[in-house]
Amino acid sequence: MRAFNFSAGPSTLPLDVLEEAQRDFLDFSGTGMSVTEISHRNKAFSAMVEEGEALLRDLMNISKDYAVLFVQGGASTQFAAVPLNLMHNKKADYVVTGNFAKKAFQEGKLYGDAECVASSADQTYTYIPELSNIPFRDGTDYVHICSNNTIFGTRYPEFPKTKAPLVADMSSEILSREIDVNQFGVIYAGAQKNLAPAGVTLVIARRDLIQNPLDICPTMLQWKVQDENGSLYNTPPCFAIYVAVLVLRKLKKLGGIKAINQINEYKAKLLYDFIDNSSFYTNNVVKKYRSIMNVPFVTPNAELDDAFIKGAAKEGLVSLKGHRLVGGMRASIYNAMPVEGVKALVEYMKKFEKENA
Amino acid sequence: MRAFNFSAGPSTLPLDVLEEAQRDFLDFSGTGMSVTEISHRNKAFSAMVEEGEALLRDLMNISKDYAVLFVQGGASTQFAAVPLNLMHNKKADYVVTGNFAKKAFQEGKLYGDAECVASSADQTYTYIPELSNIPFRDGTDYVHICSNNTIFGTRYPEFPKTKAPLVADMSSEILSREIDVNQFGVIYAGAQKNLAPAGVTLVIARRDLIQNPLDICPTMLQWKVQDENGSLYNTPPCFAIYVAVLVLRKLKKLGGIKAINQINEYKAKLLYDFIDNSSFYTNNVVKKYRSIMNVPFVTPNAELDDAFIKGAAKEGLVSLKGHRLVGGMRASIYNAMPVEGVKALVEYMKKFEKENA
Repeated sequence: MRAFNFSAGPSTLPLDVLEEAQRDFLDFSGTGMSVTEISHRNKAFSAMVEEGEALLRDLMNISKDYAVLFVQGGASTQFAAVPLNLMHNKKADYVVTGNFAKKAFQEGKLYGDAECVASSADQTYTYIPELSNIPFRDGTDYVHICSNNTIFGTRYPEFPKTKAPLVADMSSEILSREIDVNQFGVIYAGAQKNLAPAGVTLVIARRDLIQNPLDICPTMLQWKVQDENGSLYNTPPCFAIYVAVLVLRKLKKLGGIKAINQINEYKAKLLYDFIDNSSFYTNNVVKKYRSIMNVPFVTPNAELDDAFIKGAAKEGLVSLKGHRLVGGMRASIYNAMPVEGVKALVEYMKKFEKENA
Repeated sequence: MRAFNFSAGPSTLPLDVLEEAQRDFLDFSGTGMSVTEISHRNKAFSAMVEEGEALLRDLMNISKDYAVLFVQGGASTQFAAVPLNLMHNKKADYVVTGNFAKKAFQEGKLYGDAECVASSADQTYTYIPELSNIPFRDGTDYVHICSNNTIFGTRYPEFPKTKAPLVADMSSEILSREIDVNQFGVIYAGAQKNLAPAGVTLVIARRDLIQNPLDICPTMLQWKVQDENGSLYNTPPCFAIYVAVLVLRKLKKLGGIKAINQINEYKAKLLYDFIDNSSFYTNNVVKKYRSIMNVPFVTPNAELDDAFIKGAAKEGLVSLKGHRLVGGMRASIYNAMPVEGVKALVEYMKKFEKENA
């Protein structure tokens, strides 16, 4: 039986995409080879990379001023690539709104004067700092944010206006809501939440910003080099890119980001409304900063949380355990989570409350 | 019809491995999820990573003195990781025996006094420099070699004895012949030739050498960090690792590296013997340095080469075009290429010669 999989990442993928990948796994595009076996220089494959880029440009309305890159190493590698490509004045501001935002900040400190100019650590990252109050410094190379915080279930409802280029880790919300790419210098995202299996990372970078990587930047981390080579400087993670293209095709067919965002808002509302109307379940995030991708919640105590998670798994609602930094439960309801999955979760929550309240 | 795929990488994988991956693609290990969908912290998955490491230790006889790591970014990323982890005295020797050996050398120069102490560029990389004559310098942090040169079809029949730790890029021959890991400080290999789909890179590193990465080394490129986290510091390329484990299981069942090496030597001999007995086909590599993985060859002229490649593709013998630096043909006959594939190639070569000599 197929599970409803609430994992924070790697996470659920659209069933029809998986079925297509399975069906064609031994014979990609009539080549007599698996997509995992063909050369990345094969036209059948390089056409997929080009299609992936074109679909992203179309769906996110990305202009030619920006490079669109498929790279490796996850967002964690980009934590270093950001300063290694951009930190010419060795000065950058970071807003720390969660665990990964903090890791990005710490990595920035390896390469220069990285400063945490605002943080929500004082309230266990349950909110986003008021943007108008952030003391951004002059002369910085960039300002770094994490737009959606997977572990704590927050997101920026809007983005700060900054003098320096704004760099955003969007791993856990890429393609889930409409954004104006032109507000950003660089956007990056590990693919394993909304886009593809783990192993490919999306980078969208304003081309004028990336022409002079630092001397110590590894060639593979130079966005300029990746851009000049159409993401084929070396052998790319072919299978992950292939599945990404299937996911992007499906998203376009559905009506694009506006359409999926409506569904995402609907799914999140189902869950938050139920939690807010319950005296048994609690979500601690300040309402205006709630993520529509990651919904952490707790029952009245840790024993009940454990029982909740075990009972849910028996009903095919899996990977609901919250991150160890937070405890409790977390339902990650990315683009590929069907509405039925969220409804099934709410039904289970009702039943569990009735049995345990 | 399944092709015989002679691609240099990504390259052919064992058919039964692909069939197993296809069969289980929607339900990994009874989880009700695809292996591409489950959390890397899920025990069903982390057990796969541990099994992969254990199989490699067993097959290659790797002691606990060495870390065995699954990382991202391909060998090209390791070209930077090598100096960033090891170059404390900012001094390293490189032996340049081909295109990737040269790229590794150039990357080394970003971080210190990297010197090319021997090269076979004078003869278009058709041989390996005589090891006893190489003027290795004193006080170097390491000596870097590429043990098998994919484009030019050469390999080291034996390895140099060096005072400094020996670092080897084994991307195109890992697991194809028995080696003594203890001769090396570090071995690394992109997986997309003998091990797995593209997207995962194997690193085998002596633990005492990797405890002090340079200050400027990105966290994700620090082998120490990857070792301390069992290759799960961040989300790994799960699907590629999963397929690697299937490939390693199969290799163990077959009898390990000794067994596959016998088959590899047999396949290579079939092809080289035929070429050497022909006055139509030529392989330019000095015999004692011939690779058993990559076999470049030419017909009497470039027009015939083109006709050969096109005709071969029609008979299901694909990806035989040589690298643009060399021209002609190249048959990559990695572990997963069946003996039947090499026999079919030789039969086609006979027929083509008869028709065109």
